[in-house]
Amino acid sequence: MDEKLLDLCKRAQKVKYDIQKLTSDRKNEALIHAARRLIERSDEIISANHEDIVAGTQKGMNEGLLDRLRLDEKRITGIAEGLKQVAALDDPVGKTLEKRDLNNGLHLRKVSVPMGVIGIIYESRPNVTADAFSLCFKAGSAVILKGGSDALNSNRMITSIIKDALKDLNIPEDAILLIESTDREVTRQFMTMKEYVDLLIPRGGAGLIRSVVENSLIPVIETGTGNCHIFVDKSADLNKAVEVILNAKTQRIGVCNAMESLIVHSGIVDEFMPLLAKALRTKNVEIRADQKICNIIDCKKATEEDYATEYLDLILSAKTVDNIDEAIEHVNRYTTHHSESILTSDKDNAVRFQNEVDAACVYVNCSTRFTDGFEFGLGAEIGISTQKLHARGPMGLKEITSYKYLIDGNYDVRS
Amino acid sequence: MDEKLLDLCKRAQKVKYDIQKLTSDRKNEALIHAARRLIERSDEIISANHEDIVAGTQKGMNEGLLDRLRLDEKRITGIAEGLKQVAALDDPVGKTLEKRDLNNGLHLRKVSVPMGVIGIIYESRPNVTADAFSLCFKAGSAVILKGGSDALNSNRMITSIIKDALKDLNIPEDAILLIESTDREVTRQFMTMKEYVDLLIPRGGAGLIRSVVENSLIPVIETGTGNCHIFVDKSADLNKAVEVILNAKTQRIGVCNAMESLIVHSGIVDEFMPLLAKALRTKNVEIRADQKICNIIDCKKATEEDYATEYLDLILSAKTVDNIDEAIEHVNRYTTHHSESILTSDKDNAVRFQNEVDAACVYVNCSTRFTDGFEFGLGAEIGISTQKLHARGPMGLKEITSYKYLIDGNYDVRS
Repeated sequence: MDEKLLDLCKRAQKVKYDIQKLTSDRKNEALIHAARRLIERSDEIISANHEDIVAGTQKGMNEGLLDRLRLDEKRITGIAEGLKQVAALDDPVGKTLEKRDLNNGLHLRKVSVPMGVIGIIYESRPNVTADAFSLCFKAGSAVILKGGSDALNSNRMITSIIKDALKDLNIPEDAILLIESTDREVTRQFMTMKEYVDLLIPRGGAGLIRSVVENSLIPVIETGTGNCHIFVDKSADLNKAVEVILNAKTQRIGVCNAMESLIVHSGIVDEFMPLLAKALRTKNVEIRADQKICNIIDCKKATEEDYATEYLDLILSAKTVDNIDEAIEHVNRYTTHHSESILTSDKDNAVRFQNEVDAACVYVNCSTRFTDGFEFGLGAEIGISTQKLHARGPMGLKEITSYKYLIDGNYDVRS
Repeated sequence: MDEKLLDLCKRAQKVKYDIQKLTSDRKNEALIHAARRLIERSDEIISANHEDIVAGTQKGMNEGLLDRLRLDEKRITGIAEGLKQVAALDDPVGKTLEKRDLNNGLHLRKVSVPMGVIGIIYESRPNVTADAFSLCFKAGSAVILKGGSDALNSNRMITSIIKDALKDLNIPEDAILLIESTDREVTRQFMTMKEYVDLLIPRGGAGLIRSVVENSLIPVIETGTGNCHIFVDKSADLNKAVEVILNAKTQRIGVCNAMESLIVHSGIVDEFMPLLAKALRTKNVEIRADQKICNIIDCKKATEEDYATEYLDLILSAKTVDNIDEAIEHVNRYTTHHSESILTSDKDNAVRFQNEVDAACVYVNCSTRFTDGFEFGLGAEIGISTQKLHARGPMGLKEITSYKYLIDGNYDVRS
């Protein structure tokens, strides 16, 4: 067992009760103060980030990744704004969720409580460091962060500034803890720290998430993989359908709520596909489709694997179906349980699609791109859950709390 | 990969959408019919159970375990009653949990949905077979059961009768599936069937639960381990405290909500311990305590391990503290996060204990024995969760459902 890791876990465990006891005002004050200090010390962040950028460039990191890694005044302002927004949100802790007098004479209350210690394992975007801290802290939990090694200098500086800000207010600085080791074995050990960590959230690509699910002994919330479908039913408004698909596929291609796969009703496929193909061509989207569609437009033949792939790229798989049953079956076969949409004027088909498709968010006549904590009115988001346990879809503050039962009696015994 | 296991998982996956679509009336009809058939065919159950009992006796199983395994007319009536009680409960599926119009113009509903496929791994009590089926079925999920090998004949017969009852009503019999293999490797493989199973609940001793947590790739809800404390504060009514402890420790010793450890305020320990020891002696409870208590009454010295042990036996560990802080610290050090209780007349200490003790159920002036789905008014219980993710404390029907977001728009795109 790595000694530093164990020490970190013990410190989190020790500090969690102090974090739980902080009032909303104290937490908000701390978030606002940390936001201010991040801005004031942005030159230090930029200089630490510069080291990461130089190392990344030397390693031959591609421009997309370097861009995700890069921090400038504007991005730091964005990070600070994020902290202030979290300060403005309602405190999710200490709410009475239920209250009842039991038949046995006892008085029972179910109240929301912090998780305790939350672990976050994430990849190279250093803004996650402050984001994840702010949400966990507001939800009353200590957080242990394991960021990507490529962003270590940036993460270390951001963490250190937040720690200093907490110290300024006499709040335990161990509310935020960073695993600085870049040894994969240490990350693996972290995932076994069940005794110290109550919840582990991986944020990143499919590989990272699979590795966490396979290795963690701590309860995990899976996030992020989105093989999102849009089904264009026979009764859809075809021109509007083109607009929705253009938005879902191309507005931002690298995000989990982007569309990856199209399903078209055979009754309109002849009319629809040329319209769509023309629009997608302007955005350089490659279509990989079944034979029926390949007979209508010029495109590549899709393989089984295409239907199972979250491209995160300018590629769209496409499939023809003869009815709503086939559409639902296809979606449920390939869905990653993230976001799925039907475009239709048929009420019955809309209801059936929503009821029978097994995903966190099921849309009627919308782009899949709306699956997002801010869009859903949660105020912020720590990730989008694709599992059914605990939280599903966008996770805000409430979704990273737990509850407990408080029971009051009068020296009652069970008979 | 075991072929039969894979086939079972695929059948569950296939049938889950049909189970989801059943109306409450159909589900209730099926539960009541299954209850009737279990009674009508009780001779077949008793005869299958007899084979398990004979095999168990030959293996030298102790009388306690044989008793847990044994089924007679009365117990089968109890099982059937359980099914009817579940039929009478409110359907947890299809409820609109939240509803809001978003700023972006979309209409959002959050609705309760079934888990899909639930796996249950349990030890030798064959009544769990029907219990677990009834709760999962009412909650709209298919269930895959892996019972203890010692109860295989009983479990097979109960499953077969329920399947026949479902067939009578043209409901897919694969709503209940039993893993019949007694090979541990098959159980281990079952825990990796993430693609087919949405939730895994282990029910049994600490060893079983640890093994599931360590090996499962499927999200798990841990149940059952209870190292439950009662803290007798300085201001407690000492005579009533004796009654509560007697109840918590001895009413049923083998259950997870039984008391295992006592904490006593030093201000009353001299007066209280002789009273308590006298009462516990009548029930043959052995006390293992710290030096202070050993100086007052005749008892064995407790080790560190004693404080960490869930005895499930006529043994009680005991510890003296000087104040509420020490009491809370001791509880939080050794708690298994199940049920903890304070006996006090001091309002402030009561509130602090409830707020600061990290357990699913925190009592003031009650026996810990009340932690139970029926007592809490949940109508039934599939287990008591000791983790913070998804469900905490007694889990009824609601706790084995998930939710999804349904979003309606008018060909909306994200800007």
